Amino acid sequence: MSNERERRKEALQIQMHALGADAFLVTSPVHLFYMTGRIFDGFYYVPAQGDAVELIRRPLTPAQAGAIRLKSPAQLPDLLHGAGLPPPKHLALEDRELPYAEYTYLSGLFPGASILGGSALLYRIRMIKSPYEISLLREGAKVHDETHRRIPSLYREGMTDWAFSVEIEHQIRRMGHLGIMRCAGIRLETCSAIVLSGDSAGSPSPYDYSLPGGGRHPSAPMGPDNHVMRPGDTVNVDFCGNINGYLTDITRTYAVGYVKPEAAAAHAFSLSVMRAIEHTARPGVLCSDLYHLAWDMAESAGYADCFMGTVQQAKFIGHGIGLQVNELPVLTKSDATPLQSGMIIAIEPKLICPGVGPVGAENTYLVTEGGTERLTLCNEDIAILGHSKP
Amino acid sequence: MSNERERRKEALQIQMHALGADAFLVTSPVHLFYMTGRIFDGFYYVPAQGDAVELIRRPLTPAQAGAIRLKSPAQLPDLLHGAGLPPPKHLALEDRELPYAEYTYLSGLFPGASILGGSALLYRIRMIKSPYEISLLREGAKVHDETHRRIPSLYREGMTDWAFSVEIEHQIRRMGHLGIMRCAGIRLETCSAIVLSGDSAGSPSPYDYSLPGGGRHPSAPMGPDNHVMRPGDTVNVDFCGNINGYLTDITRTYAVGYVKPEAAAAHAFSLSVMRAIEHTARPGVLCSDLYHLAWDMAESAGYADCFMGTVQQAKFIGHGIGLQVNELPVLTKSDATPLQSGMIIAIEPKLICPGVGPVGAENTYLVTEGGTERLTLCNEDIAILGHSKP
Repeated sequence: MSNERERRKEALQIQMHALGADAFLVTSPVHLFYMTGRIFDGFYYVPAQGDAVELIRRPLTPAQAGAIRLKSPAQLPDLLHGAGLPPPKHLALEDRELPYAEYTYLSGLFPGASILGGSALLYRIRMIKSPYEISLLREGAKVHDETHRRIPSLYREGMTDWAFSVEIEHQIRRMGHLGIMRCAGIRLETCSAIVLSGDSAGSPSPYDYSLPGGGRHPSAPMGPDNHVMRPGDTVNVDFCGNINGYLTDITRTYAVGYVKPEAAAAHAFSLSVMRAIEHTARPGVLCSDLYHLAWDMAESAGYADCFMGTVQQAKFIGHGIGLQVNELPVLTKSDATPLQSGMIIAIEPKLICPGVGPVGAENTYLVTEGGTERLTLCNEDIAILGHSKP
Repeated sequence: MSNERERRKEALQIQMHALGADAFLVTSPVHLFYMTGRIFDGFYYVPAQGDAVELIRRPLTPAQAGAIRLKSPAQLPDLLHGAGLPPPKHLALEDRELPYAEYTYLSGLFPGASILGGSALLYRIRMIKSPYEISLLREGAKVHDETHRRIPSLYREGMTDWAFSVEIEHQIRRMGHLGIMRCAGIRLETCSAIVLSGDSAGSPSPYDYSLPGGGRHPSAPMGPDNHVMRPGDTVNVDFCGNINGYLTDITRTYAVGYVKPEAAAAHAFSLSVMRAIEHTARPGVLCSDLYHLAWDMAESAGYADCFMGTVQQAKFIGHGIGLQVNELPVLTKSDATPLQSGMIIAIEPKLICPGVGPVGAENTYLVTEGGTERLTLCNEDIAILGHSKP
């Protein structure tokens, strides 16, 4: 991790230079983890050049080389001065992670500095994964594949989609999921396993999510709604576990007893979109191109009304993923970001089959020099739950 | 819920008057749920007097009485004008929930208004629970009691504290936990069940938490660390499930095979602190009084070095709880808030028994006119895991 730390710090310093910031004060958990490899209550202060400094309030562990003990954020200016660092003239803060009150409090500690919003710099760096990060994502993808292989054994006849989701989440946790699933922004609040069956999969929700479901309670309006899974129903199992800090996103479709022909056809269409995106995606292709490719296919195939939802259709076809489930880039109509080697993207062309349920798959891909590499390798066909009833 | 909505809106309008705000624009999930009984992507706009207005971006459901469809936050001024509302002169926003970038974006939509930080108003109202909220908390507490009764059946010899925590979390989920556990602020990130055994329970952590543990991975530095639970070890099971939007906090102590005398003594001390607080707490008593009561007892009993942690000791003895795990009031040295009827507080006098493990209990209480009522009623004694080995 020490090479990674140095590499990430230098990448941030390059971005800071472009923004005109001569210092960056990082303090959100996700960005402390990204920059230092661990989470603490405190700050990571990056000057325009040279070494960064950790200022740690908690945990109360013996002093570490290069780390400064801090009791209160109010000490920041004095402690930085004591460490031989000049006062910042243009200080970057995390404008999309810090609440307004904390951002303005920290700004007030540096009255001589102009304050610049810096979150976008970190998002841009995080968008391109290093070989080390890719190895962690591969490790996570293997666990996700293995979890999916075990899912049919968790099904019991007459189960609700809610009860099934609890068993699946339990299986992911047994496979090592740390239990923390990070989302960017304050709005998205989700469980690790979203299991949807029947028409309720198309319930509109507060989230721009591919098939979020309506949930069981108004305080958690996403996911399964306690629909009893009946023979012929399809079931979407979308999950995102955290094995080592990094998330993998994967969806597979199951069917109770047998697959109805319309579900088989719609699922085959989803896989044809997946193959078309795999065939097209490579460095330089725009995110919006992949979005349009998928939607053009949906329109030609007559699936425009049930692609990515029915009443409420998701406005993207895929998204970046890493430390958080919703990273850059986002594959929307308007995102003209070109794909770059080292991006990790989840592609999820899903459909609702009215009267049957949700179908489709989701895979996590690495963008390579030559195209893409699929990390989630388990079988994409619809798997049967319970006794096969042909 | 419609009476509740009206009551909460009026309580907010009274607070707004004291602050000098003639409007409040609420948008965080926790506060939308508190004010409206559900979560949506959009806004709840409360004028100085009269009816509030919902402006909803998602879910895309048929129009509801009193709700306005909104495509983008940029439409807010026009839509409010169209609803016959005067432009705000002093607009309150959630300064502790909204990221800086979103707060300043929303501020910019109302150039004629001064902007006031309003989160504290909502925290103050939420601190006192209504009879309806108390009934939901009672319902949650019953589920928590029943879950604890089932915990010994989940233990297997040779289990790690991590594996035990996964089984306990699974049990809570089976009992109806919705899977979303809300925390205030950006720093606290925790699982529903914190299971700690042996000395690792005292690991210092980034959080001011009573016995957080060190965790299994630097990206999730809290909770069990895979310590194998051995005969004589004590095990703290602290969990917080969400049955209906509201959280209940409860801790019980278990021991593998038998209870070592020093653990029995320290646990009995924890319960004596619990009884002393129950005896003392009533409306008018200061939060800081209860903190000092607990610490004075710990010092007199010779437990000052291991009360609320060892290397890193928690700086509180209890906390408010409701929609979030860390609500007001906080029972710290310096919180001079007087207890009030209708508060819900979790009291957690815990200790580390060196070489044995964590002991103590945590209960959730309702503050009543006459004192307190304990909501978490299951047995507080140390329960034995596995075969009893006297």
